[in-house]
Amino acid sequence: MNVYPYLEAVREKRPLVHHLTNWVTIFDCAQVVKSFGASPVMAHAPEEVADMAGMASSLVLNIGTLTSEFIESMKIAALAANMKRIPVVLDVCGAGATSFRDKKSLEMLDAVRIDIIKGNGSEIARIAGLEVRTRGVDATDVGADLHDIASSLAKKRGCIVVITGKADFVVDANSVYIVQNGDEMMSHVVGTGCMATSVIGTFVGASPAPDMLAAAAAGLSCFEIAAELAVKKCTGPASFKERLFDSIFHLKKEDVISMQKVVP
Amino acid sequence: MNVYPYLEAVREKRPLVHHLTNWVTIFDCAQVVKSFGASPVMAHAPEEVADMAGMASSLVLNIGTLTSEFIESMKIAALAANMKRIPVVLDVCGAGATSFRDKKSLEMLDAVRIDIIKGNGSEIARIAGLEVRTRGVDATDVGADLHDIASSLAKKRGCIVVITGKADFVVDANSVYIVQNGDEMMSHVVGTGCMATSVIGTFVGASPAPDMLAAAAAGLSCFEIAAELAVKKCTGPASFKERLFDSIFHLKKEDVISMQKVVP
Amino acid sequence: MNVYPYLEAVREKRPLVHHLTNWVTIFDCAQVVKSFGASPVMAHAPEEVADMAGMASSLVLNIGTLTSEFIESMKIAALAANMKRIPVVLDVCGAGATSFRDKKSLEMLDAVRIDIIKGNGSEIARIAGLEVRTRGVDATDVGADLHDIASSLAKKRGCIVVITGKADFVVDANSVYIVQNGDEMMSHVVGTGCMATSVIGTFVGASPAPDMLAAAAAGLSCFEIAAELAVKKCTGPASFKERLFDSIFHLKKEDVISMQKVVP
Repeated sequence: MNVYPYLEAVREKRPLVHHLTNWVTIFDCAQVVKSFGASPVMAHAPEEVADMAGMASSLVLNIGTLTSEFIESMKIAALAANMKRIPVVLDVCGAGATSFRDKKSLEMLDAVRIDIIKGNGSEIARIAGLEVRTRGVDATDVGADLHDIASSLAKKRGCIVVITGKADFVVDANSVYIVQNGDEMMSHVVGTGCMATSVIGTFVGASPAPDMLAAAAAGLSCFEIAAELAVKKCTGPASFKERLFDSIFHLKKEDVISMQKVVP
Repeated sequence: MNVYPYLEAVREKRPLVHHLTNWVTIFDCAQVVKSFGASPVMAHAPEEVADMAGMASSLVLNIGTLTSEFIESMKIAALAANMKRIPVVLDVCGAGATSFRDKKSLEMLDAVRIDIIKGNGSEIARIAGLEVRTRGVDATDVGADLHDIASSLAKKRGCIVVITGKADFVVDANSVYIVQNGDEMMSHVVGTGCMATSVIGTFVGASPAPDMLAAAAAGLSCFEIAAELAVKKCTGPASFKERLFDSIFHLKKEDVISMQKVVP
Repeated sequence: MNVYPYLEAVREKRPLVHHLTNWVTIFDCAQVVKSFGASPVMAHAPEEVADMAGMASSLVLNIGTLTSEFIESMKIAALAANMKRIPVVLDVCGAGATSFRDKKSLEMLDAVRIDIIKGNGSEIARIAGLEVRTRGVDATDVGADLHDIASSLAKKRGCIVVITGKADFVVDANSVYIVQNGDEMMSHVVGTGCMATSVIGTFVGASPAPDMLAAAAAGLSCFEIAAELAVKKCTGPASFKERLFDSIFHLKKEDVISMQKVVP
């Protein structure tokens, strides 16, 4: 695949990406969307989430600092998005760390249509039913093939599943993209996982529905190409994050084309 | 007008600026106040907001991630500020995006004394009663003269109205300051609008009440002069924001005097 | 004392530091923990805080943007930590500013076991019963000896007390460490006080219980050595904060050993 057209679509269409996300990385989720040239909005009041989701290009849900009330707002927003066929991305952040996170994630998956489930290896494994434990929000070794796990969850739920890590698996019932861009420095910055989810929301918000799988993979590739460019100019995790946003803002066609590593 | 004395007043008096603001840009709102040499405090529990507002130099309210409960805390804080004649600034962030935001903004304006209403063009137009729509929290074209809109709202509500954009209009029933500092890069950083509101709160918190209009204009000018200095040293939105805070911290008399663009 | 072994312990054991903290500095609290090589997690829902605290290496509580509900979640988390003898650190952020903060802080101290109480001079003085007032979250002059105040509170509560400022006092009923690292620039960045608390949580989470006093002092010293290194490369508060995280990430044995200023 060629990821560049998906970046072009984001910059042209400037999708409005509605988030109900966590309080730790909420600024970075917004800034990553804006750095790509799109438009983030964060809103969680039950009285307005349906209106906001209904005017958005995509909806990003992230349970990083969930509460029961917040999950209810997520459901209202997702139902409004579902009715208008606006894509919904769910980051099951911290699934496998507490039974509350597992229960609320599954409750969401049963109550509304989620188009893309995203997490790290142990989060997705837990949602797929494996007996694994996530250490806070950090992935642990799952002891099984991540592609298989993603694939079986995608089939079970009839949706796209994304596992991020050294390589990212972007999977639906029939096919897979493996994204091999990125840099180890990303793991030293709080919120790169959350940002990846917001990027997926941005890219699927700018592409037609049948391209959703490719758009998700393209978004991850672009984000991680920017990371590869940023790491060359940084002296640690904080300067890396700064350069990452700057690199995304200036991401060039020739860099994307020459650096993309997406299989197949 | 000469904006520099207003900056001096901030640095000398170090106003305590109490915020009830949104969760996206809360850090940057605090840091912008601190970078100017003043003292930010964020507190929203209904049990304490009256006490905190009562000891503050000014109160900044921002509905960016509002809930019904949060609006109730804002009212309690604003009433406490009103009783002590502490200036209250309201950022109607996202007004025009959902009817909930419109309703809650108007409810606030009816329930308490707001000294300064601040927003982008479509937010203020909506609060002024025009049938416009804000795209999330991003301004849309209003199709009418912004100065006229601000002026009519200022007369109707008997307060100051600020519209930020390429040029900023700082208006009361009788007069107007137009601030023409700033740089387009500000629009690529999440939160510059919220920060502008916090800066207005900081400057009006350091000046006597009759100077409120001039202090608000002076604050915007100083903030945007710092942005002009910052943009020269940046490579994108994230490094711009870093340099912006650094520039504010070191803002020099000669730069302010030579760069200020405030009409009349 | 020699602080370096405590840094080594953090990097080897990678403690999981569970936070219930404020919404202003929540990202920076997480990033400072991660920059030291440890693992932060933020979670506050009453349904999951006991599970999360129970799997953590330490628990950090910070009342910077407290509400009544949030304090209840803190108590549940702290009780779970207490039962497993996981160290609990409480930052009494803003104590002395409102009676609500004082009341809730004392309520916490009576309801659960707090191993380390941390604040600035006027916050700790207020918790120790003095009639002082904190200006928002900024320390005011207490007019009494900080060491004496910390020491008497430590005796009364049977815990460790930390007062941060130009010099930091790390005190229990019998002994004291005075940490004299750091730089004045730290006072121009929002959240360095909160970060210091998270650092204390990180270091005590990596050391055995009898070393808690020394680990807390070592954490502050390492954090402030990184600040001394960062300030040399910065142009203001925002670039300082960026370099601070980068310096922490790369903190070298020889720098720690040659720069540490901890008495006795």
